[in-house]
Parts: sequence; structure tokens; C-alpha cells
Amino acid sequence: MAESVNIRLKGEMAFDIEIDGHHLMIDSAPEFGGENRGPKPKNLMLASIGGCTGMDVVSMLRKMRVPFDDLRIEVSGNITEEHPRHFDTIHIIYIIKGLNIPRDKVETAVNLSQEKYCGVTYSLRQSASITHEIIIEE
Amino acid sequence: MAESVNIRLKGEMAFDIEIDGHHLMIDSAPEFGGENRGPKPKNLMLASIGGCTGMDVVSMLRKMRVPFDDLRIEVSGNITEEHPRHFDTIHIIYIIKGLNIPRDKVETAVNLSQEKYCGVTYSLRQSASITHEIIIEE
Repeated sequence: MAESVNIRLKGEMAFDIEIDGHHLMIDSAPEFGGENRGPKPKNLMLASIGGCTGMDVVSMLRKMRVPFDDLRIEVSGNITEEHPRHFDTIHIIYIIKGLNIPRDKVETAVNLSQEKYCGVTYSLRQSASITHEIIIEE
Repeated sequence: MAESVNIRLKGEMAFDIEIDGHHLMIDSAPEFGGENRGPKPKNLMLASIGGCTGMDVVSMLRKMRVPFDDLRIEVSGNITEEHPRHFDTIHIIYIIKGLNIPRDKVETAVNLSQEKYCGVTYSLRQSASITHEIIIEE
């Protein structure tokens, strides 16, 4: 399936991105000549992996008829000091809130996403060590 | 350097993402249970690579004192049909507009980004074939 985005310089380091019919501004931090008018481009990768696996997990929990009140995902990563500066570690925390949530089903959903379905995890795992944990809150 | 994003489910398949102090909504297409309230998570990778290399090229053209009126970047990619569905090809088109722009300097900037500086290119090259072209418009 073909996908595309259009990007245009809109300031010192800010770019407007047209993506799936939506617009998004990215920028860099002032110490790198930007004005912080939007997220840094590299961190969009953390958003991409968290969103991709999050959608997998939501779909699977619903299919498994696991009710939950809230789902949050925290994604953190370390960027190397050496060029090319890239994420060499990524850690994903899945925080699921609800009453009597069966941990085994959540683990099944997360593992299926991480090992089989999440294409962003697949892409980034080649250059980063990716780990995860699950927190269940009542 | 440590970076992080916070993601929270906000609808059927929509997620709010807090990233570098900004908020971004992602969603999936209606055929996958979403409402198209924001970009698809996988396409954030195309935005990430285009923004990352775009900032490199802007910085280097300015350092090389190459004046230009406009910089656009089109990033397209193919997503595999098989799971994990990921980008197996990515093509980046750099479109630079201005009078008497020296192609050799633009090529130097783009090549330095693609081969040395752009960490997103480095990360994605492990799982995708990445190609590029340069278009200079007067």
C-alpha cells in the first residue's frame, strides 16, 4: 500500500507536514536554531511506535471482550551521542485501568502486537533494543 | 539523551499524544475502526524521516551560504501486505526553489544527511530500501 506525506519549510527550522489530510507543525529546539513550534522530528518515531502498538492492543482487548476504562502508553527512548544520532533503546509502558482486568489477556494482546503485528516495532527493532512493561490500575 | 512521549486513548481508535510540550491527535481510517481524526501512526514515520533530513539539509545549505526561496520534501513509502505491515521502500524527493542554486552543493548536503547525520534514515534503513532524488526549480 502506498502512503505519502508533503513537507514544507515554514520558518527557521519549522516545517508544515501534510499527512493523511491533516496538518502538523514540527520544529527543533532553540539551541538547534528552532523555535519549538512543534514536536522534534525524531520524537515522532516514539509517537509512531506508541500509536501503532496502542491501536493493536485496543483492537485485541475489544475482540477478547476485556473491558477497560482507560489506556495510556508512555514511550521513552535514548538517543545516541554519536552520529547518526538515533534511538538505541526504546521502552514502552502500557498502563491499563479498569476493574478485574485479566493480566494474562493484556499480556497476550501486548505480546501479539510486539512480536507479530506492530510494523513500527518491527522497523525500529533493527536498530534499537525495544522493551516493554504492563501496569494494571484499578 | 532521553526523550519521551505520553499517549492516551481518546475515542474508538484515536489517541492524544503529548510530545515536546505539544499535543497531536492520531487516528485510524474508518475501515479499521477509526474516524480519521488525525494522521495514521505508521505515517508519522514518513513525517519523521522527512523532517529529520529536511532540518539537516536546511542547516547545511545555510552553512554553505546557498540561498533558496523554498524547500519542500515529498516522502512516499510502500507498506507490505504481510504482517508485520511495515515500510519496505521509502523514497524522498527534495524540491529546492531559487535562482542559480548550485546542484553540487545541494547534493553534498543531501548526501551528508542521508549517509552521516539523519538518525531516522539510519534507523529505517535497516528494514526499508531508502532512495532519494533532488529537484531544483527556478
